[in-house]
Amino acid sequence: MKKNKKLKVSIVMGSQSDYKTMKLSAKILQNIGIEYETKIISAHRTPKRMYEFASFAEKKNIGVIIAGAGGSAHLPGMISALTSLPVLGVPIESKKLKGLDSLLSIAQMPKGIPVGSLAIGKDGAINAGLLAASIIANNDPNIRRRLNSWRLKQTKSVKKKPK
Amino acid sequence: MKKNKKLKVSIVMGSQSDYKTMKLSAKILQNIGIEYETKIISAHRTPKRMYEFASFAEKKNIGVIIAGAGGSAHLPGMISALTSLPVLGVPIESKKLKGLDSLLSIAQMPKGIPVGSLAIGKDGAINAGLLAASIIANNDPNIRRRLNSWRLKQTKSVKKKPK
Amino acid sequence: MKKNKKLKVSIVMGSQSDYKTMKLSAKILQNIGIEYETKIISAHRTPKRMYEFASFAEKKNIGVIIAGAGGSAHLPGMISALTSLPVLGVPIESKKLKGLDSLLSIAQMPKGIPVGSLAIGKDGAINAGLLAASIIANNDPNIRRRLNSWRLKQTKSVKKKPK
Amino acid sequence: MKKNKKLKVSIVMGSQSDYKTMKLSAKILQNIGIEYETKIISAHRTPKRMYEFASFAEKKNIGVIIAGAGGSAHLPGMISALTSLPVLGVPIESKKLKGLDSLLSIAQMPKGIPVGSLAIGKDGAINAGLLAASIIANNDPNIRRRLNSWRLKQTKSVKKKPK
Amino acid sequence: MKKNKKLKVSIVMGSQSDYKTMKLSAKILQNIGIEYETKIISAHRTPKRMYEFASFAEKKNIGVIIAGAGGSAHLPGMISALTSLPVLGVPIESKKLKGLDSLLSIAQMPKGIPVGSLAIGKDGAINAGLLAASIIANNDPNIRRRLNSWRLKQTKSVKKKPK
Amino acid sequence: MKKNKKLKVSIVMGSQSDYKTMKLSAKILQNIGIEYETKIISAHRTPKRMYEFASFAEKKNIGVIIAGAGGSAHLPGMISALTSLPVLGVPIESKKLKGLDSLLSIAQMPKGIPVGSLAIGKDGAINAGLLAASIIANNDPNIRRRLNSWRLKQTKSVKKKPK
Amino acid sequence: MKKNKKLKVSIVMGSQSDYKTMKLSAKILQNIGIEYETKIISAHRTPKRMYEFASFAEKKNIGVIIAGAGGSAHLPGMISALTSLPVLGVPIESKKLKGLDSLLSIAQMPKGIPVGSLAIGKDGAINAGLLAASIIANNDPNIRRRLNSWRLKQTKSVKKKPK
Amino acid sequence: MKKNKKLKVSIVMGSQSDYKTMKLSAKILQNIGIEYETKIISAHRTPKRMYEFASFAEKKNIGVIIAGAGGSAHLPGMISALTSLPVLGVPIESKKLKGLDSLLSIAQMPKGIPVGSLAIGKDGAINAGLLAASIIANNDPNIRRRLNSWRLKQTKSVKKKPK
Repeated sequence: MKKNKKLKVSIVMGSQSDYKTMKLSAKILQNIGIEYETKIISAHRTPKRMYEFASFAEKKNIGVIIAGAGGSAHLPGMISALTSLPVLGVPIESKKLKGLDSLLSIAQMPKGIPVGSLAIGKDGAINAGLLAASIIANNDPNIRRRLNSWRLKQTKSVKKKPK
Repeated sequence: MKKNKKLKVSIVMGSQSDYKTMKLSAKILQNIGIEYETKIISAHRTPKRMYEFASFAEKKNIGVIIAGAGGSAHLPGMISALTSLPVLGVPIESKKLKGLDSLLSIAQMPKGIPVGSLAIGKDGAINAGLLAASIIANNDPNIRRRLNSWRLKQTKSVKKKPK
Repeated sequence: MKKNKKLKVSIVMGSQSDYKTMKLSAKILQNIGIEYETKIISAHRTPKRMYEFASFAEKKNIGVIIAGAGGSAHLPGMISALTSLPVLGVPIESKKLKGLDSLLSIAQMPKGIPVGSLAIGKDGAINAGLLAASIIANNDPNIRRRLNSWRLKQTKSVKKKPK
Repeated sequence: MKKNKKLKVSIVMGSQSDYKTMKLSAKILQNIGIEYETKIISAHRTPKRMYEFASFAEKKNIGVIIAGAGGSAHLPGMISALTSLPVLGVPIESKKLKGLDSLLSIAQMPKGIPVGSLAIGKDGAINAGLLAASIIANNDPNIRRRLNSWRLKQTKSVKKKPK
Repeated sequence: MKKNKKLKVSIVMGSQSDYKTMKLSAKILQNIGIEYETKIISAHRTPKRMYEFASFAEKKNIGVIIAGAGGSAHLPGMISALTSLPVLGVPIESKKLKGLDSLLSIAQMPKGIPVGSLAIGKDGAINAGLLAASIIANNDPNIRRRLNSWRLKQTKSVKKKPK
Repeated sequence: MKKNKKLKVSIVMGSQSDYKTMKLSAKILQNIGIEYETKIISAHRTPKRMYEFASFAEKKNIGVIIAGAGGSAHLPGMISALTSLPVLGVPIESKKLKGLDSLLSIAQMPKGIPVGSLAIGKDGAINAGLLAASIIANNDPNIRRRLNSWRLKQTKSVKKKPK
Repeated sequence: MKKNKKLKVSIVMGSQSDYKTMKLSAKILQNIGIEYETKIISAHRTPKRMYEFASFAEKKNIGVIIAGAGGSAHLPGMISALTSLPVLGVPIESKKLKGLDSLLSIAQMPKGIPVGSLAIGKDGAINAGLLAASIIANNDPNIRRRLNSWRLKQTKSVKKKPK
Repeated sequence: MKKNKKLKVSIVMGSQSDYKTMKLSAKILQNIGIEYETKIISAHRTPKRMYEFASFAEKKNIGVIIAGAGGSAHLPGMISALTSLPVLGVPIESKKLKGLDSLLSIAQMPKGIPVGSLAIGKDGAINAGLLAASIIANNDPNIRRRLNSWRLKQTKSVKKKPK
């Protein structure tokens, strides 16, 4: 049954301003050739939109949800509360506590509702894309191959000597 | 219109184990003679119960919601996302990061959805009861009087000299 | 008795330089149509002014006190020590410890004297205004209505898709 | 092709003493009916064992690797450096910095090599099991069903009122 | 004029429970032969007592005020706001944030109102006694002599080899 | 004997670059009319100079030593190890850990060797000057009078209303 | 046998961008006249290159390895896992957590595999060069002499008075 | 010249109570067969003893100094200020800030005076022994051989499977 279904990745974020970070998740998925969508969903300002999105995600052929959020960063955890799909969280760097508050809020989820947290900021967004790709690759050997070749290219791009 | 309506305080918490902290909020309200209710509502494990509770709280004569939560502590913020009633948050102390994660998760709410955070643990629960009382007292001079006399008694109980 | 009395919000801060943060509390109250006043009161440099302000606040039809303070941030806690009115604290961001010192100093109040802490900096000032509004709204259904409509407008302003 | 292949989860940890935390990942997988293995692999004391394990994991029908590690916690990141399979990290709580060092070491991976970090300690181990299950469920509707029913049971187990 | 006046040290603390820490300040002063008094004064629960104490301290032949406080620890800073006598602060260790909150609240005073902060807990209380002694010794060569001899004895008590 | 001796304040710092912070201590002392000297003494790069300075300070009519230091900030503690004069420490703000490392290194002195720590950076330097003044004032009623009038002027300079 | 062998220092780093920090290690070694090499080796992106480098370092007349790394900073620890040569780690400052994450990841190594951590950023890189020099000097009295004279020059360069 | 000289390791610590941590450094050196001495030297309580020890260490055939210290932890840095021998620092865990203060005080040394910091507590003491051994091994192929065989034994002792 699964074999005909291509799973996509949903990238959601709390506000437009998070997009300059979260578009790096999108870029990775595009490079590796994985379908994705991007949405603004605020746990706090649009709780009903979040509720609807998360409750129906499983039905919509989504294989991974990447949620970026700053400050108290409730979005990834609340989405995970409403779906059993894999949820990855990206703590968005803020001016004040440098994203440490967001990292703790995303990573320190209580038992029962899991979120996989990535690094604070752009590195985290890139890695959320790569981790999503590695999950989607479980269902699709072509994606695994393209991910492996992306990784190989990355390894080759590291120069031998600094200057 | 307001004068006939007695507002009550709703004390909610993520799990039974939070009650040994949160019952101190209840005790303060009882001492001062303010009506209250206690409920277990987990933002993560019972998101629908939370949605329903918070969406209908305004209709139920609730004047203040006190929400206690540990770890990533999303409960106070998510309740505030679903109601415009005043929401107070109590970070429950955990074994790992000593409640710092919960304090940051409760206090660092993004603009637009307010939560008033109290101190970590039992001191915070007691003060949540007192802050709720001070809010309810805005509607009821008798409660203000009883709160003031509770405060006076507290002042008088402080001894002059240590031994 | 309460029905004829309109409660106002008092916004106090330690110095002129805090005003660029704290005026956001004022702006929210103005938007929702709640009466307010702004004052400079320094716990450290003008302790007698603080003493007088806080001791007489209850008599002056004040329903909520919002106190913004940076560094060791004693203002909100000391005002709460001198009145049983609801006190909300806003940690002002500083260059050094990024407001973490102020957040801890405001949030970690000992039992008996409550302060509700908001987020560090401008988000906290905005939310202090909103939390004050939600408290004042307990006494005035018109304010509740205007607050709810402010919240609704906020929800509607969130775009669906980032770009 | 995928439909005949059952993916398993590999749970690795730096030492025997980590097992009292990491066995909770195993327990979750067992409950939901997902095949798993447990191994001791130390990034620092057995780097060659780690190289071999990670380099061949893709060939061995592994769908997710859960790596638990304390202190400077290099195991999850180094495994991810050697395979493109999804890697989840569990920071093991230590006596000194309470697992904050491990959380930062696991979560703050540089761009290019992703690890999804869970919470510090036992809650994190449980959630690593659940997140692994949600990933494996992408390939197997029966596991999704069992995971959803585990989640439903969890929701139902939350009592209404504290006592 | 000064030569006839013996300055004493006032040791104040927020509650009886702080005394098991603060009595170590007293013990040092007693050892060196400096007059002192101990008082319970809570910035939060007895603000008027604090106002009175601090406002009149200069008149009462006090040369140094040592103030011990936990949690948000406003006592030393508020006393310094009300007198120009030297004020030393001792952050009392708490169960939650281990005294880091108190240390920041005492040390991070804004410009204009100084407090000298000692270490968290018992070491800090001992050192507050010694620093007070070193200040009082400025007025009294006998005390300087006794302090120097206390210090010498301390140096001599350090063994050469561990066992 | 003391009455004829005017005590001075010695302001020492680890490097020229600390002077832009530490000159604020000097400015306060100058304003209040207290004699002072400024010196560069590095605990690490000039340990012998430090040894000599601290060992002979008592003989040189110094009443208070203010030591500013950044990073691991050993200067104040090591000077206090070599003299029983009152030593105040100013943590100099650095680019990396924002002075938190210096604050902990200065404040967390072990029992037996006291240092009074001020706030990180310029506020701390100003307050070190004021605390030194308040100590010197113990010996000189004129300085107490000038200090009190400086404080009064500060209080009067606080405006009533922000704009 | 040792007397004819000149040991060199190997300076490795995770990426080109780390070179602006790590070249300060090189500069110190050059000043003191110690042979060194510089290499880019990423624990995460080039794990095999790292494996090979570290496994053969002992054979290549290397006396000290200096490894600079940012973020989760696994490079120094993983190199130490693969060789018994002395390994020094330099935490590279990042924009987010200011290098605190890297410092903890490098310093908090588990027992059995040692890394000596230096300070965050450029000061750490300079000191890594000096510590490497002090280690190499154990084998070569000429280097000890040149190191001592470098240190003496440093001491002499410290001015007496700030301006 | 070097070939006839056996270098020893000096293990120093601030007090007897540090010995339960620091004796683990000694044990490692004993296992590998490296000569060592242990001393109590307090930077604060015995500054002259420290000056003498550090100033003459180079003359006494010492190849590495391991210094353990808690709280503000000045011992390693001050010893390094007085000798150009390699100095390793072990932050001793305290009850209050869990050794984070000591770690920062040891690791964050300013440029010019290097200390290699190990982990907080017993793991750090063990690793200080191992790092000292790896430095001494640069001068003695027999020690390198014994160190390598210690490391190999450690690797072999890691079990394959947890239970």
